[in-house]
Amino acid sequence: MLLSVLNYAGIAVFAASGALIGVRKRLDVFGVWTMAVLTALGGGVARDVLIGVTPPTSFQSWQNLTVATVAGALVFVLHPQFAVLRGSVLVLDAVGMGVFASTGALTALHHGVSPYGSALVGITTALGGGVLRDILVNEVPLLLQQRDLYAIPALSGAAATVAAYQWGATESRALIAGAVLATAFRLVALWQGWRVPVAPEDLAGRIGRAVRRVFRR
Amino acid sequence: MLLSVLNYAGIAVFAASGALIGVRKRLDVFGVWTMAVLTALGGGVARDVLIGVTPPTSFQSWQNLTVATVAGALVFVLHPQFAVLRGSVLVLDAVGMGVFASTGALTALHHGVSPYGSALVGITTALGGGVLRDILVNEVPLLLQQRDLYAIPALSGAAATVAAYQWGATESRALIAGAVLATAFRLVALWQGWRVPVAPEDLAGRIGRAVRRVFRR
Amino acid sequence: MLLSVLNYAGIAVFAASGALIGVRKRLDVFGVWTMAVLTALGGGVARDVLIGVTPPTSFQSWQNLTVATVAGALVFVLHPQFAVLRGSVLVLDAVGMGVFASTGALTALHHGVSPYGSALVGITTALGGGVLRDILVNEVPLLLQQRDLYAIPALSGAAATVAAYQWGATESRALIAGAVLATAFRLVALWQGWRVPVAPEDLAGRIGRAVRRVFRR
Repeated sequence: MLLSVLNYAGIAVFAASGALIGVRKRLDVFGVWTMAVLTALGGGVARDVLIGVTPPTSFQSWQNLTVATVAGALVFVLHPQFAVLRGSVLVLDAVGMGVFASTGALTALHHGVSPYGSALVGITTALGGGVLRDILVNEVPLLLQQRDLYAIPALSGAAATVAAYQWGATESRALIAGAVLATAFRLVALWQGWRVPVAPEDLAGRIGRAVRRVFRR
Repeated sequence: MLLSVLNYAGIAVFAASGALIGVRKRLDVFGVWTMAVLTALGGGVARDVLIGVTPPTSFQSWQNLTVATVAGALVFVLHPQFAVLRGSVLVLDAVGMGVFASTGALTALHHGVSPYGSALVGITTALGGGVLRDILVNEVPLLLQQRDLYAIPALSGAAATVAAYQWGATESRALIAGAVLATAFRLVALWQGWRVPVAPEDLAGRIGRAVRRVFRR
Repeated sequence: MLLSVLNYAGIAVFAASGALIGVRKRLDVFGVWTMAVLTALGGGVARDVLIGVTPPTSFQSWQNLTVATVAGALVFVLHPQFAVLRGSVLVLDAVGMGVFASTGALTALHHGVSPYGSALVGITTALGGGVLRDILVNEVPLLLQQRDLYAIPALSGAAATVAAYQWGATESRALIAGAVLATAFRLVALWQGWRVPVAPEDLAGRIGRAVRRVFRR
């Protein structure tokens, strides 16, 4: 029950992020709706295709599409107010990412995917919608560009859910452990301003010099 | 029989639209062919993957690829003449969209997808090829950008096919009803210049004032 | 055994090409890793989804991801040295393309796909990762743009593997024939500078005049 609510919250929040980008790109009302729906449901559809659930859940039950549509419509109407809430959008987005990482991983486990594969499916679920959103509006995915941590928290959350479930935790606990870990990790990284490095010009040289220094001692 | 012909017509027309964009982008002969094939067959491949038909029909039977190749080759040779025919390309594109919306929906029904899911599969079939085409040449999909109606006609056509089939119409009639509705809707919208609105700056304020005015009475 | 080695070599080489582009685009360490993994494994995942192998092999066994990660990490550390090796990267990329075209086709044959469909699956495997790589960094795929031969060698290799297997060759021989043909074809085309034509302005007119000249005789 709680999980179902969290799942819809994840869909709503990703739909809102897609719709907000659509509004900023001056897309028409249908374009905004398309962005909301594909961002919110894209990760789950990728998950279902990868684990062989056809047709995907979002094509079978109307709830997912309805939640995404309502969230997209709210942004279409209230987008100036949403711009003010940018901070809380980041928080909600972190919640959505965490929920999708853990529910994606558990769904895969249910369908007989190995623990290793289930963790990867969890990451794909958490990150797929955002990548699709950025490709659609013709930008390099934020996931690739932004130097703050996003994928490592998703990976941790998916791995935590799989590990907890393998070690005999109940489903709810495995899901909550993964979702909380991923969300908290992402929020702390944002709050502390943790940065991921780009490739330095002469990393090989630096490693070489460090190794030589060690051997000189 | 008629439907088979219409289906190949849809493939040919989408192939021509992909090839024309490839020629304008100065792609080489193989790039133009790739654009033709992926635009024409992309929607159907997405449909088959979503409903679990693997390998997709376009990988199993040679007819689809041949039709797309011939249409692409014609555009490669005759593209200056095609530029003149821009109006008729829009008409043919509307026919292709209508045919794919209804055949996509009926194919999904045949594979046991729910009516709701089948309508969504129909839309995906009708719109998938064009979105793929635009992503490949690095542009924001026309579907998102253009302010004339495209997705609503596709949705109407797919829904009409599903509804007619559920209410006991024969397959041919369900298909023709959907294809004709989607195509006619799209053509009338183009002819009348119907426009889809973008998000207004202060829609929430306007709705608020309208509500207050109602309550003052 | 040899084939397994070749397959990992293909993954490593595609991972290196993805990572190198990621470094050039100034992506952070995780972005570079994502580029490496998606480029190296994207074609194989597409292959498995198309032929109904779910979850895809790269989600089931850890080896593919490990090879891609190691190759991506090497590029991240040694990228200035890799820039010097541009020639050898092109050679390795040709080997990877050839290996994926033939292994993709044979995998499809094993799963009951028709010879025709298997050749198409082989091409998709060989070209899918590179197209995904270019879409992610927001560029028109090299496959579409570059005027040297890439897809025709992939097609030849996939078709050769299918034909050899149909005519009773052992699996190893069919695979080696396809991989060698595709790789050699690509390398000779690069070496000789073979170019693919773009659409000429008045091809129809030229064909018309040539036909009239023939009939005048």
